[in-house]
Amino acid sequence: MSTYSVTFIPQNKSVRVEADTSLLEAALRAGITINNLCGGDGICGRCKMIVNQGKVTGRVSAKLTRDEIRRGFVLACQTPVEDNLVVEIPEETWAKEKVVAAADAARFRDLTEGWEYEKDLEPAPLVTKVYLEIEEPDLANNMADHQRVDDAIRKALKYRSMQMGLKIIKNLPEILRINDYRITATVGLRRDIAEVMNIEGGNTAESNFMAVVDMGTTTIVAHLLNTNTMETIDARACFNSQGIYGREVTRRMITAEQKGVEELQRLLVEDINSLIDQLADANNIKLKDITAVVCSGNTAMGHFLLGLCTKNIRRNPYVATTVSPPPLRAAEVGLNINPRGLLYSLPAISGWVGSDITAGILSTRMNEREELSLLLDIGTNGEIVIGNKEWLVSASASAGPALEGASVDCGMRAEAGAVEKIHVENGAIKYQTIDNKRPKGICGSGIIDAVAVLLEQGYINRSGVFVEEEKPRVEIVDGLKRYIIADGRETGTGHPVYISESDIENVITAKAAIFAAMKILLRRLDLSFEDIQRFCIAGAFGSYINIDHAVGIGLIPDLERKRFEFAGNTSIKGAKIVAFYKEALYKIEKIREDTTYYDLMGANDYVEEFQKAMFLPHTDIEIFHRSVSLA
Amino acid sequence: MSTYSVTFIPQNKSVRVEADTSLLEAALRAGITINNLCGGDGICGRCKMIVNQGKVTGRVSAKLTRDEIRRGFVLACQTPVEDNLVVEIPEETWAKEKVVAAADAARFRDLTEGWEYEKDLEPAPLVTKVYLEIEEPDLANNMADHQRVDDAIRKALKYRSMQMGLKIIKNLPEILRINDYRITATVGLRRDIAEVMNIEGGNTAESNFMAVVDMGTTTIVAHLLNTNTMETIDARACFNSQGIYGREVTRRMITAEQKGVEELQRLLVEDINSLIDQLADANNIKLKDITAVVCSGNTAMGHFLLGLCTKNIRRNPYVATTVSPPPLRAAEVGLNINPRGLLYSLPAISGWVGSDITAGILSTRMNEREELSLLLDIGTNGEIVIGNKEWLVSASASAGPALEGASVDCGMRAEAGAVEKIHVENGAIKYQTIDNKRPKGICGSGIIDAVAVLLEQGYINRSGVFVEEEKPRVEIVDGLKRYIIADGRETGTGHPVYISESDIENVITAKAAIFAAMKILLRRLDLSFEDIQRFCIAGAFGSYINIDHAVGIGLIPDLERKRFEFAGNTSIKGAKIVAFYKEALYKIEKIREDTTYYDLMGANDYVEEFQKAMFLPHTDIEIFHRSVSLA
Repeated sequence: MSTYSVTFIPQNKSVRVEADTSLLEAALRAGITINNLCGGDGICGRCKMIVNQGKVTGRVSAKLTRDEIRRGFVLACQTPVEDNLVVEIPEETWAKEKVVAAADAARFRDLTEGWEYEKDLEPAPLVTKVYLEIEEPDLANNMADHQRVDDAIRKALKYRSMQMGLKIIKNLPEILRINDYRITATVGLRRDIAEVMNIEGGNTAESNFMAVVDMGTTTIVAHLLNTNTMETIDARACFNSQGIYGREVTRRMITAEQKGVEELQRLLVEDINSLIDQLADANNIKLKDITAVVCSGNTAMGHFLLGLCTKNIRRNPYVATTVSPPPLRAAEVGLNINPRGLLYSLPAISGWVGSDITAGILSTRMNEREELSLLLDIGTNGEIVIGNKEWLVSASASAGPALEGASVDCGMRAEAGAVEKIHVENGAIKYQTIDNKRPKGICGSGIIDAVAVLLEQGYINRSGVFVEEEKPRVEIVDGLKRYIIADGRETGTGHPVYISESDIENVITAKAAIFAAMKILLRRLDLSFEDIQRFCIAGAFGSYINIDHAVGIGLIPDLERKRFEFAGNTSIKGAKIVAFYKEALYKIEKIREDTTYYDLMGANDYVEEFQKAMFLPHTDIEIFHRSVSLA
Repeated sequence: MSTYSVTFIPQNKSVRVEADTSLLEAALRAGITINNLCGGDGICGRCKMIVNQGKVTGRVSAKLTRDEIRRGFVLACQTPVEDNLVVEIPEETWAKEKVVAAADAARFRDLTEGWEYEKDLEPAPLVTKVYLEIEEPDLANNMADHQRVDDAIRKALKYRSMQMGLKIIKNLPEILRINDYRITATVGLRRDIAEVMNIEGGNTAESNFMAVVDMGTTTIVAHLLNTNTMETIDARACFNSQGIYGREVTRRMITAEQKGVEELQRLLVEDINSLIDQLADANNIKLKDITAVVCSGNTAMGHFLLGLCTKNIRRNPYVATTVSPPPLRAAEVGLNINPRGLLYSLPAISGWVGSDITAGILSTRMNEREELSLLLDIGTNGEIVIGNKEWLVSASASAGPALEGASVDCGMRAEAGAVEKIHVENGAIKYQTIDNKRPKGICGSGIIDAVAVLLEQGYINRSGVFVEEEKPRVEIVDGLKRYIIADGRETGTGHPVYISESDIENVITAKAAIFAAMKILLRRLDLSFEDIQRFCIAGAFGSYINIDHAVGIGLIPDLERKRFEFAGNTSIKGAKIVAFYKEALYKIEKIREDTTYYDLMGANDYVEEFQKAMFLPHTDIEIFHRSVSLA
């Protein structure tokens, strides 16, 4: 088979590939991270490149403008290599790998305190370091080294059942005698048994740190914890590098089947390692003093982290490999902390309701309350839990990524320059960007605002279609109407930031999927929205939503506003609770066991409810009486 | 430094060594196993070699006869290499490695049944294989693979707490689907938690075997068990190859400090592997179907097996590295069974009272009885346990190897041709050899008989000294009297089998050490021998002892004969009980915890008691009234 050379600029990286390899694949092989979202399906239009030398014959994509095509633009994922090429990668296509998402970090950082477990649970971290001054043996007490140390640890930590591995036992005679029987033991909980992970000479007990990680499909957030003071020291976030294989988790599962899950695992582990490295560096902490990592995320992410098969999650009947992985040596998956440090993967409910949700239940404590709560986590999928201390039911709605800023022409992640808020001031539509930078695109909260405001201001009708009447800042391009949020002069790039009729359609589809799911779940429980006394919106994204606008477009029900609660990043909050209160490891496992998963795929009335929700806010306007009266 | 070449015949193996290396060391490096007992101290006289070419200057040993010295004999351990040599190794010096000790195997084979746990404990092996026909997932029940299998195993085996490793979880999706959800799970108990060790497709539950191993200092015995039928399939024994580094365990500990414990570990593991290989071969069983090994032995052996430091066991205050090692993957120490098979090392009481003794307590059930028992295990050390269901006290007496046939000129192991019994028939002293072969030497039971009979027949006095009066078959060589058991014509080698005055002295020393230990322990407990209602003699060797003769020389007390009980090889018996009744793993751990170790080194009155026991049967003849009246 013939091969061709492809050189990418400005990176100046060359790679030789077989004929018919896609240009996207060639760039990945050259080690360049591409900012695509759909994973190579030609849908997102993000992998634009310019062919400077050589011939290409790939089909023309509707994602490219006539002008772009004239200038040599192609979609890399749709372009097979059939010639030696020199290809230019525009800056917006080229993802700077593992750049810290500063805005996200800030968003997540201050949202993680305020659980109330300190009142009910004894502070006892998953991994403890304890300094021991052990009595030296004599003829009257010549207990063996192993049992002597074991006894001392038991007395200090009150573990019932404890194990010590052969390697540690082997080193005991020397460590004890060199250090005059003054040692520090690191002890971690492994389900029902505590493990002596490490024995060091002298007193190192004060250096004990943990990392908690929320493995989001889009953004990975890590917090560094001081185990002894029970404080959060610092936080970092980065974009999930798996994004090069598609923004949607389903696309990544397909990649895992094609390329092997190890590739997805590698990217995720590198991201986490990079965050932990930065946290350790910035705070002058040695990696060896980080003794545990607690991870949560959707079930596919949990599988990728451990290198588990996700094939059956995306196929009927949607079976995960595991929803409760055992605690592992972190090194076993390649995480660079203390070589004997532990990795805790929090338990999930099903293949489509992950450990981010069990963590959410744990941190909102909805499972301990009398009153009925609903927990909604809005992401690419919308996960829903309804329940109280008696019962818990969960479901997952495949919303698509529109609410996160993808499948929206100008959609972007919540980075500096993203339009995050839109509101009406003195009759005029105003926007606000993250970090007050010049607008580059629009992120999730901005998109919801845009649709709500356009509806409110009479730009679009309840079907999401622009009204006939002529309105300011509305343009028609390729037959589709769009509202210009910021024009080329405002953005400074010459390109406007806008929201189009097809974007609005995607938003409506997404919100309809979530709303219908809530409706169906309530119907199965013989309940209505009015029965929900507490409506928790989880996810950092959630915290930036304008409740009235979210109700206005029918994403969430029209309840008394005081029932709504922004729960923050409950995924990382839950992970932190487990890290600090080992008892919570049993609590979250019990949550997993007690939470029923309801599969919407099997619901006959789902499609009907979905159709009814395809209006703004809903076909049945009655259930949005508060909102409508507000408008 | 200059080096010399040494060639050994008949092996025709050459090795180049540095000047001053001992000839014994050179032979070991050439891969030749030498039958020495003292570990190179020049004491046992077993490493005789003949220097055919080259000059040696090592000192002349009293262990060599004038005639041997003339013929070029040297003691290899006392001979530094200072020239290029050709050295002949006589057959008796050259140990055929890992030869099955057929006689020993026979001795051990039929001694291992008859415990009575089947009445009180549920048969439940340490490692179970269970065949499962698991329900296929559908939308109504799409539990994850891991939890589905976990549930099925729990239902079948009623384990409370169970863990499954990442590697097994990883393979579940494929194994389940390829095999239509029909699998066999191998589940082993790891202390307080059960571990799913393996998942295979189809039904392999009927192939589940275990090996139990008694790691004797002299002889290693292995039994192969069918886990499902709870039967002993076969037994094998071999001499402990560590013997090349000394017959006494202390000598081997010194070697471990000098050469590294890995060398001792390697030899032991090779021996066990060789026995297991033979057992598997002979019974058409695959090594992969052996799922566990349960080992017992003295504490040093237990340490050698795991590669643990024994340095502090032999130094005041005699501290072991561990007396209760965790269950391990057998492969971790190099045992060749199923790659995920488990190794259980039974718990010991102290550095000098090993797991063979806890196994002995378990199998005699002395810890469950009202009546007072004494358990005596006679080996190189004599271990003693006294107690009942209320309390247990143990001690170890350093007897030396005389009672095992070492430190006795013609002493040998219990192999074919060993004089094993001596008795008086019609006034004449008669002997009997193992397998009725021509006599080659004398083993432990024969030695006790010889001393008892010589005393009884008036050849020696109560100090063990030959009487002045002239007696048949008594000769004087190098000023020492000896009794000829079989002369050169009977043996067929020209060399007689005899017992000398110095041999008898060694025997008296050994029995005095054991007897004094029992006395001291009883005194501390404010008890006398008459309080012992049940006197259990453990060890295969014990079973061949003539009780009257053992009492006659004062090795054991002069109790009513019906109180004596031959308990057999309680070490392997106990291991087998644990293998078949997993509950016994907790019982034996409790025995370990509950048994006090009394250190005789700290007893002021020990030396006095020892001196009093240096007569035949004892200085205080009153306590041997039955025996004396019998004589």
